Amino acid sequence: VDPIELWDEDPFSGKIKGNKIFGRGSSDDKGELITRIRAVTSFLKVTGDVPCNVKFVIEGEEETGSAHIEEYLKKYRKRFSCDGIIWEFGHVDSKNRPIIDLGMKGLLYVELSLRESNMDSHSSLAVLIKNPAWRLVEALKTLRDSSGKILIKDWYNEVLQLNKSDIKILKSLPFDEKEFKKEYGIREFLGKKTGLEIKKSLAGEPTCNIAGIVSGYYGEGAKTVLPAEARAKIDFRLVPNMSPKKQVMRLKRHLKAKGFGDIKIKVYHGEAAARTNPKHPFVSDVTLAARRSFGKYLLSVSSAGTGPMHAFTHILKAPAIAVGSTYVFSRIHSPNEFTRIDLLKKTTKCMCLILDNFASSN
Amino acid sequence: VDPIELWDEDPFSGKIKGNKIFGRGSSDDKGELITRIRAVTSFLKVTGDVPCNVKFVIEGEEETGSAHIEEYLKKYRKRFSCDGIIWEFGHVDSKNRPIIDLGMKGLLYVELSLRESNMDSHSSLAVLIKNPAWRLVEALKTLRDSSGKILIKDWYNEVLQLNKSDIKILKSLPFDEKEFKKEYGIREFLGKKTGLEIKKSLAGEPTCNIAGIVSGYYGEGAKTVLPAEARAKIDFRLVPNMSPKKQVMRLKRHLKAKGFGDIKIKVYHGEAAARTNPKHPFVSDVTLAARRSFGKYLLSVSSAGTGPMHAFTHILKAPAIAVGSTYVFSRIHSPNEFTRIDLLKKTTKCMCLILDNFASSN
Repeated sequence: VDPIELWDEDPFSGKIKGNKIFGRGSSDDKGELITRIRAVTSFLKVTGDVPCNVKFVIEGEEETGSAHIEEYLKKYRKRFSCDGIIWEFGHVDSKNRPIIDLGMKGLLYVELSLRESNMDSHSSLAVLIKNPAWRLVEALKTLRDSSGKILIKDWYNEVLQLNKSDIKILKSLPFDEKEFKKEYGIREFLGKKTGLEIKKSLAGEPTCNIAGIVSGYYGEGAKTVLPAEARAKIDFRLVPNMSPKKQVMRLKRHLKAKGFGDIKIKVYHGEAAARTNPKHPFVSDVTLAARRSFGKYLLSVSSAGTGPMHAFTHILKAPAIAVGSTYVFSRIHSPNEFTRIDLLKKTTKCMCLILDNFASSN
Repeated sequence: VDPIELWDEDPFSGKIKGNKIFGRGSSDDKGELITRIRAVTSFLKVTGDVPCNVKFVIEGEEETGSAHIEEYLKKYRKRFSCDGIIWEFGHVDSKNRPIIDLGMKGLLYVELSLRESNMDSHSSLAVLIKNPAWRLVEALKTLRDSSGKILIKDWYNEVLQLNKSDIKILKSLPFDEKEFKKEYGIREFLGKKTGLEIKKSLAGEPTCNIAGIVSGYYGEGAKTVLPAEARAKIDFRLVPNMSPKKQVMRLKRHLKAKGFGDIKIKVYHGEAAARTNPKHPFVSDVTLAARRSFGKYLLSVSSAGTGPMHAFTHILKAPAIAVGSTYVFSRIHSPNEFTRIDLLKKTTKCMCLILDNFASSN
C-alpha cells in the first residue's frame, strides 16, 4: 500500500463514498473476484442451484508471475477440466464499455550480463581493458532494428498471424491516437505506425524491450570509471505459437553467432501467449451476456499485456476470456484504489448471464 | 577519509611507523608538496639563497577538476612567468624508480541523455512508444567500433602523432603485460594489442569510454517497464592538439547527422592534453637530477590520465614535467594511505638537484 501517506482512507477499510469502494485490491483483484462469487451465490439463493458446473481457481501469485500455476493445473488437470474459462480480470473503459479480451501476450524476461575484468578501473585504461558497457551496447544493437523488428534468426518462425476475423475485431475496437499521444507525451508512434497498424501491433506484434540497462557510474556529476560489469534486462512479448524455451535457445544461438557467447543470460520468466478463437461458441455466450448487462461491449483480440492464461488454455484445453468490472481509471496498484459499485453489479449480472447462456447453449 | 573504520590510525595523525607516515593526503598530495618546500628551505638554510627563482602554485581543486586554474593563470600570467614547471605529482614504481611523465592526456566528459515520453510506461506499450534505452544504444553504437576506434567524423584530425623520440622513450619504458592482465583479470587487451602497441596507446591514443549508462529498472528481479529516459556518461581522453571545444562540436554534428539530434549533450569537463618535448633542455635537468638521487629513473611520454597540465604549458609557455615521491602502492585516496620517508628524502634531493641543474644550464 506504499506510499501509505497518500491514501485518504485506511487502505484496508473498504470505505464507501457514493458509488465507490476504496481500498487496496478493491478493483484488482477482490472486486473482480466478488462478482464471480456473487453470481454463484445469487443463483443458489434464487434458484437453489447453478445452471452449470462452476469451478474456482484462486491463487495468490498473479502479481509475481504465477510461477506455480502451471504445475498446479497439470497436477489437478482432471479436477479443473472445463469447457470455458472466465479470466480473473477485465477492464471497463471510460465510456462504461466492458473490454472483452480473447487473449494475452506471452513474455520472455531475461537479463543479459557480462564482466570484462575483475574490478572497476580508472578510465585512462580504456585503451587496454574492454568495457562491458560497450560490448553490451554492441550486442544489444544486433537484437533489433530501429523500427522495432527483432533481428534474431527464426524469431518470427511460429508467429500466429492475425486472421480475417481478428482484423475485423481490431477494426471495430476504438483507439484514440491523439489522446494516447497526449497521455504519454509522444509525437509519433514507433515505426510511424498509424490506424490499423497500431491495433495490429498491440494485439499481435512480438516485442524486444530494454526494461533496464546499467553499467558504471550513474550518479550526479562525472566519474572517470571503466566499469567491470554491465547488465540489461530485456522483456520480449510473445504471441501465440511462440515457445519461450525455443526463443531463449534462439537468443543464445544469436549472441554466440555474433561473437557474444560470453554474455550470460538469466531467464526470469517465460510465459506463452494465449488467444481464443473469436468464433468459439463460448465467445458469444460472453458477448451476449455483456451486451445485456452493460448495453454495449468492445471485443479485443488480445491484451497487449501478459498473464498466465496460456497455462489454462493449454492444459485445460478450453477457451479463456477476460471480462470484468475494473474501471480503467480506478488507480489499481496506487493510493486510493477504488472499485465502482455500479460496475460490480453489472459485472455480477454479466457473470450470471454467462452461466445461463453457457448452460442453454451446451 | 571514508570509510574511517578501515583506518588503523587517526587519518589526520601523521603517525610514523618505520619508514612510513600514515594519513589522508600523506602521499597525494602533501607528501609531494613537502618535498618541493623542503628543497627550497634546505637551500635557504645551507646557502642563504636559492640557485634560481622559484614560484609556487598551490590550489585546492585538483581532485574536482581544477575548474578555476586556467582563469587564475591567465590573470596572473606575468607573475607566474617561468622557464620550466615541476608538476604536483609523480610516481615511484615498485622497483624504486621514479617515473618521469612528460605529459598528460586531456579529457572531454559528457553526458548524453534523451527522453521519449513523459513517464515510464508498461512495457506492453513497446509496440507503440519509442524506448530511449534502445535509441541510446543505437546512438552509442555509431560512436565507436569494437576495436575502440572512434567513428565520429574528423575526430582524429589534429591528433599529434608520436614521433621517433617518443617511440624510443616508449620502447625503454617497461610494461608487464602478464602482471597487468593478472591484476585486472583480463584475458586479452582491447583490439588484441601487444608489446609496443600497448605502450603507444597508453601514451597517445584517444579513447571513447562509457563511464556509465542507465535506463529503466536495474534492481533485483524483473520489472516490465518501458523507460521514459536514458542517460550515458562518456569520457573521451584527448591527446595533444585536440581541442575539447572542437570535439564537442564534432560530437554534436555526428549525432545530428545520424538522426540523433534530439539527444542532449551535457559537458562536464573539457581539458586539453599537454606533452613536453623530450628534447627540451629542461628534461635533462630533471632526468639528471633523478638519476643522481634515485640511481635510476623511467621516462614516460605521457601519463594515460588527465590533469590540468595543459593550462600551465599553454598559458605560461613552459615545459611541465611530473616527478615525485608517491610510491605506486601507497593507497592514495584509500584507508591507511601512507608516504615513504626514504622516497620523500630522495625526492627532496631530486628537487634540489633540479634547481641546481636548471641554474647552471641557464
